[in-house]
Amino acid sequence: MEYLAEFIGTAILVLLGNGVVAGVLLAKSKANNGGWIVITLGWGMAVMVAAYVTGQVSGAHLNPALTLGLASIGDFSWAMVPGYITAQLAGAVMGSVLVYLAYLPHWRITEDADAKLAVFSTAPAVRNAPANFTTEVIGTFMLVLGILGIGANSGAITQDNVDLSALFSTGIAPLLVGLLVLAIGLSLGGPTGYAINPARDLGPRIAHFLLPIPGKRDSDWSYAWIPVVGPVVGGVLGALVWKLTGFGG
Amino acid sequence: MEYLAEFIGTAILVLLGNGVVAGVLLAKSKANNGGWIVITLGWGMAVMVAAYVTGQVSGAHLNPALTLGLASIGDFSWAMVPGYITAQLAGAVMGSVLVYLAYLPHWRITEDADAKLAVFSTAPAVRNAPANFTTEVIGTFMLVLGILGIGANSGAITQDNVDLSALFSTGIAPLLVGLLVLAIGLSLGGPTGYAINPARDLGPRIAHFLLPIPGKRDSDWSYAWIPVVGPVVGGVLGALVWKLTGFGG
Amino acid sequence: MEYLAEFIGTAILVLLGNGVVAGVLLAKSKANNGGWIVITLGWGMAVMVAAYVTGQVSGAHLNPALTLGLASIGDFSWAMVPGYITAQLAGAVMGSVLVYLAYLPHWRITEDADAKLAVFSTAPAVRNAPANFTTEVIGTFMLVLGILGIGANSGAITQDNVDLSALFSTGIAPLLVGLLVLAIGLSLGGPTGYAINPARDLGPRIAHFLLPIPGKRDSDWSYAWIPVVGPVVGGVLGALVWKLTGFGG
Amino acid sequence: MEYLAEFIGTAILVLLGNGVVAGVLLAKSKANNGGWIVITLGWGMAVMVAAYVTGQVSGAHLNPALTLGLASIGDFSWAMVPGYITAQLAGAVMGSVLVYLAYLPHWRITEDADAKLAVFSTAPAVRNAPANFTTEVIGTFMLVLGILGIGANSGAITQDNVDLSALFSTGIAPLLVGLLVLAIGLSLGGPTGYAINPARDLGPRIAHFLLPIPGKRDSDWSYAWIPVVGPVVGGVLGALVWKLTGFGG
Repeated sequence: MEYLAEFIGTAILVLLGNGVVAGVLLAKSKANNGGWIVITLGWGMAVMVAAYVTGQVSGAHLNPALTLGLASIGDFSWAMVPGYITAQLAGAVMGSVLVYLAYLPHWRITEDADAKLAVFSTAPAVRNAPANFTTEVIGTFMLVLGILGIGANSGAITQDNVDLSALFSTGIAPLLVGLLVLAIGLSLGGPTGYAINPARDLGPRIAHFLLPIPGKRDSDWSYAWIPVVGPVVGGVLGALVWKLTGFGG
Repeated sequence: MEYLAEFIGTAILVLLGNGVVAGVLLAKSKANNGGWIVITLGWGMAVMVAAYVTGQVSGAHLNPALTLGLASIGDFSWAMVPGYITAQLAGAVMGSVLVYLAYLPHWRITEDADAKLAVFSTAPAVRNAPANFTTEVIGTFMLVLGILGIGANSGAITQDNVDLSALFSTGIAPLLVGLLVLAIGLSLGGPTGYAINPARDLGPRIAHFLLPIPGKRDSDWSYAWIPVVGPVVGGVLGALVWKLTGFGG
Repeated sequence: MEYLAEFIGTAILVLLGNGVVAGVLLAKSKANNGGWIVITLGWGMAVMVAAYVTGQVSGAHLNPALTLGLASIGDFSWAMVPGYITAQLAGAVMGSVLVYLAYLPHWRITEDADAKLAVFSTAPAVRNAPANFTTEVIGTFMLVLGILGIGANSGAITQDNVDLSALFSTGIAPLLVGLLVLAIGLSLGGPTGYAINPARDLGPRIAHFLLPIPGKRDSDWSYAWIPVVGPVVGGVLGALVWKLTGFGG
Repeated sequence: MEYLAEFIGTAILVLLGNGVVAGVLLAKSKANNGGWIVITLGWGMAVMVAAYVTGQVSGAHLNPALTLGLASIGDFSWAMVPGYITAQLAGAVMGSVLVYLAYLPHWRITEDADAKLAVFSTAPAVRNAPANFTTEVIGTFMLVLGILGIGANSGAITQDNVDLSALFSTGIAPLLVGLLVLAIGLSLGGPTGYAINPARDLGPRIAHFLLPIPGKRDSDWSYAWIPVVGPVVGGVLGALVWKLTGFGG
């Protein structure tokens, strides 16, 4: 059931997360030009909703960077890592298909092919591989450190027992993690669009490649490795630093 | 008393929900051109307030799609369905009358007849019945799945006992459901204006038809079935999928 | 100590509430043109902060309409009403003086005298006494009904025991009442600027009259009765309707 | 471990806080022109995240004005004051370096040297030392009074025992303090950009002075004392007034 939860959770994450990007970028949408506050709040609430629906079942990782970060500090079973990541990627593709369907008449009337790709995957404001990589590392570092901090502060997570399922059963934690993602988006999203999650970027990129989107451009595969590798590095670093600080009591 | 609660709750929902649309769309309103963040946050907070006032009494369905979704999975008595839906519709009309009164001087000075209808009922950004229907199905599916997830995560709802009155007595749940509606609005509201609630759309449409609004257009009855049937289909699907996942433990 | 709490609480309410109006309206302020979301969120958070600081001491009425509404249903001692209202008015004047000081260099460089008055007191978008009165009644009705609903839902308030001090000691209640004010502002603030509180409007109007504001206009005394009498009527109605519904269990 | 927590917490505070300013002000950032709501919400969430990660360890002062305010009323050991303030300042420099790195390609393409300084430190909208000082005093007064009020209301803080570590272990308190900072930013940030924290202003100013930022201006040292001394005065006043009111029961 954990894998199903990761699949459904990541589908919700991408449906609501990329949905808000669609709303702001696609022509004639009522949310058109809603601005950065709409995008960042939409993504934050997307994480929150996904975590409420699946948190107590699977711990709502919904993100290979978090899964790998926890595994790397010994707090998640390596045997479950492949299943988690596969479910997350598949869920992200599923969520992208739902965004495609929800905004179906808007693809044809939107001329900007870059905007149509941006509904699926991130792209840098200024293309510079080392800098873009660094930004994704810092953002995901903050994400994983923040989740562990939220858990430790509420007592649901300790240095010896990192259990996100327990954390997300405490009622307010999924909201707080949603607000953490809002914070990261507001503050660190400017340069690269804050993928901070390999599944959230790669899954939709695959969907963009496969779906019959009118007037689409290529799927910018040359950039695709940055929002995959950067978040993984950042997630592992975040977990390690938290472990080293000993803040989990 | 449950029926009175559904009546008052849906009246509050529509007063505050359509109130914010009036604020943004009607001429000379201080909220004029407030943007998508104002509309979606206004609707989210409208749901929250309505659920705080009535949640512990009736479970704050305030939405026939939720009532029918719960009944269809055996978690709400079919005998109470007609009373609930009638109260919701009547409350939505009542709420619309209050919006009409609160913004009384603004109807005459607003020239755009489409905007005046939009204060009452939703209209699609691009008119395409199958696509608009699909969008409403996806949005309401997310709403019902999200409510059940919030309830299950807090322990107030289990697979065997879906009791929204218990959920809404937990203090934070009405806020969370309000934020869920904010999330859906931000992310899935672009194409159709997210009715996701037959009473919220049909009740105000009836009010628009009946009220002496200066310079009003017709009430767009040809579109009226979509925000009624779409949400019902989505709500039933959302309840079924949640039941099938077994996430309620 | 209750009176001191009402004084300080209303001073905080007006400092932060009218502070955000100053920020958006006064020339060269960094918040200039921040829009309706800034104003409504600022007022909502102002209520929240004031209620956290004073809620457990005095019940954080901070509003004669609430004080009179509770007294009229027998849930607040009439003997304390004059002291509460006096403290609220004095606090509102104090808060206005602090806003004046916080934005000191901005008064001279702001040319619009209407904007300078708007930092202190509300003015209608369309001047129409019966309609403006009705809007204030509806808004304050919603405020008092909402507060009682929040209290009843959390169990801190019952039909037989309306004790706001107990409510505001529950940790989350001041936040929820702040969000209730946000909701009312977003949705019902467009026509009159939502005074919904006689002290919040009259106290600052007195301050505007007395303070040496460069290039100020008259204090619009002909309108002053509406944001005083309207909220009182609405507050009493809200308390009565809540009592009649029996929702407080 | 407390000093490490203050270092890391202030680094997070400045990374996310000044990060949002970078996002809004630097050229080509996706958050460019996001507006006052983005900046104030970003700072509020920055405080929240920092307090979740470090609150239970060190009490998450993250601000010399709070440290000195608590010490001045006898609720924080003077012996720990130098260590706390040093850690806060060092953390603020560290956070600034991370902002510099996260937005690396954007410094060269941003022409406005004032904007580049504004990413690090505050500057007044209208330069007027006594007025700017007063604004910072009022804002920080509100901050410290608000934190103590939030603590007292939740029962974690009493007149005899001000223990922020206990407060920040209550789950919701870091969120509430983040919203308090949001409130102060929205309402009192207009004139000076609300430093309300000597470390948050001086640390980044030192970083601005030292970092190799292309096309930077001088670091405006003549203004630097105001966002240091003003907040300290305001913080001490806030703590004293709270003590005098006796609201802590």
